[in-house]
Amino acid sequence: MPRLIAVDWGTTSLRGALLDEAGEVLEEKSAPLGILSVPNGDFAGVFAEQFSDWMKPGGAPCLISGMAGSRQGWVEAPYVACPAGPAELARHLHWIERGRIAIVPGLSDAQGDVPDVMRGEEVQIFGAMRLAGLSDGLFVLPGTHSKWATVRGGRVTGFRTFMTGEAYGLFAQHSILARTLDAAAPLDAEAFLHGVTRAGSGEGLLHDAFGVRTLGLFGRLSPAQSASYLSGLLVGEELRQQKLPERGEVIVIGAAALVERYALALGAKGAKVRTFGANATWAGLRSLQ
Amino acid sequence: MPRLIAVDWGTTSLRGALLDEAGEVLEEKSAPLGILSVPNGDFAGVFAEQFSDWMKPGGAPCLISGMAGSRQGWVEAPYVACPAGPAELARHLHWIERGRIAIVPGLSDAQGDVPDVMRGEEVQIFGAMRLAGLSDGLFVLPGTHSKWATVRGGRVTGFRTFMTGEAYGLFAQHSILARTLDAAAPLDAEAFLHGVTRAGSGEGLLHDAFGVRTLGLFGRLSPAQSASYLSGLLVGEELRQQKLPERGEVIVIGAAALVERYALALGAKGAKVRTFGANATWAGLRSLQ
Repeated sequence: MPRLIAVDWGTTSLRGALLDEAGEVLEEKSAPLGILSVPNGDFAGVFAEQFSDWMKPGGAPCLISGMAGSRQGWVEAPYVACPAGPAELARHLHWIERGRIAIVPGLSDAQGDVPDVMRGEEVQIFGAMRLAGLSDGLFVLPGTHSKWATVRGGRVTGFRTFMTGEAYGLFAQHSILARTLDAAAPLDAEAFLHGVTRAGSGEGLLHDAFGVRTLGLFGRLSPAQSASYLSGLLVGEELRQQKLPERGEVIVIGAAALVERYALALGAKGAKVRTFGANATWAGLRSLQ
Repeated sequence: MPRLIAVDWGTTSLRGALLDEAGEVLEEKSAPLGILSVPNGDFAGVFAEQFSDWMKPGGAPCLISGMAGSRQGWVEAPYVACPAGPAELARHLHWIERGRIAIVPGLSDAQGDVPDVMRGEEVQIFGAMRLAGLSDGLFVLPGTHSKWATVRGGRVTGFRTFMTGEAYGLFAQHSILARTLDAAAPLDAEAFLHGVTRAGSGEGLLHDAFGVRTLGLFGRLSPAQSASYLSGLLVGEELRQQKLPERGEVIVIGAAALVERYALALGAKGAKVRTFGANATWAGLRSLQ
């Protein structure tokens, strides 16, 4: 018996799952129909095309997280300010059809000098909390724009974004480093950790990145190693900014290949790591009902 | 009476000056014929086309600095290791025609874990030393790849490169920030210094860069201010790595628009600044004779 139509509508993809009472996935689908690929702003049309077979009269409602709630999305759902947990988000669902289809708002953290925002990751955090049975901890969501969130008493109390994945793409594809770097090479764990360690020495990313070029020039990094070393420099620069817990785990949520890199880097710094994948999104949306 | 044909052959441009005994410029020319624009590796042909009217039998010799001496250039002139001054470089000129045309080698600094290199900037440093009458100090050459060099007793004892200018271009043109940033806007000194200060707070470039987006999203930075703020973040990140002298000046060498930004940022940190432009190259090449 379906209980929730859970939808994650991001920048580049649209994913959905039909969940039962226990949050188990009954059916799943995905399409390359991120919000940037919706023709003429026809979000309602794309939604109907993908999910009308799941939307029954009097049936399960649909909750949508991710960039669909941004200014460029279906309907802008204003950010909910930290601290916030599932209860606060559930109170601020932005209903497109009352009781039927709602957009989940993102979170903002305006506690520092510069505000920060997330859309979609908050749902993954709540899902991982539920799956792990945790209401406190440090949660990491690696990606184009990585998020580091602190959770206390089941609510996100604050978070920060790092443009790590995007910066990797910029340097690997568009900078002078692109000439001597094999971006398609598989992860070289040793070169990656070498980069993580180097970033920790505190010379700064702008200097360390040039080192990718000079180490190549002096024959000390191959093109394949250069890609992993650069990745390590960037992840290490991100980690350098964090206060890792002396006890307890760091929860890392994301795609397997990225989670592997963060687990390696965090492990090298002595942190215990617990990881979750895409199912965290479904558990998080279920926790809002 | 011409005494030297001074040539600066870089990645994107080729510049030359005819100098007299005192180092005064008798004639100058430039062309968009950087080493990347030389057809079929015909460096000798391009050189002859540009400078044959200056090259007289028994006349002044020609010294060429910059990327013409790199692996992608006319002839590779191996780096001279630090510490090195004009005397060391003069001993390692790479003659293409003995007594007539020579390539000036670049410098390497292999004293740390990661080697560093420069080609062309060493000549500008020697020129600024000569023009300023200094044999000790901290020399900064802002640019795509900024250089910070320490000079003692007339020799560069060590230096570091920062990919500041290139990172600015990557973030301003190719990242998500490009959508909300007016890269063509003139410098907004207040927004620039705001960025410099923010970088000094030590949150790290990967986090601070995302702040350009959120400050825009929250209406606290206009597209024009965003460009200057991002520039300030990057220059500030570079400056954060430096030990500025408590007394004495920092020598900044480069194009006027860049030198202006660095002078602003250094001034805000309480440093005294003295600046030099393109003539430093000519004075530096003259100092090698």
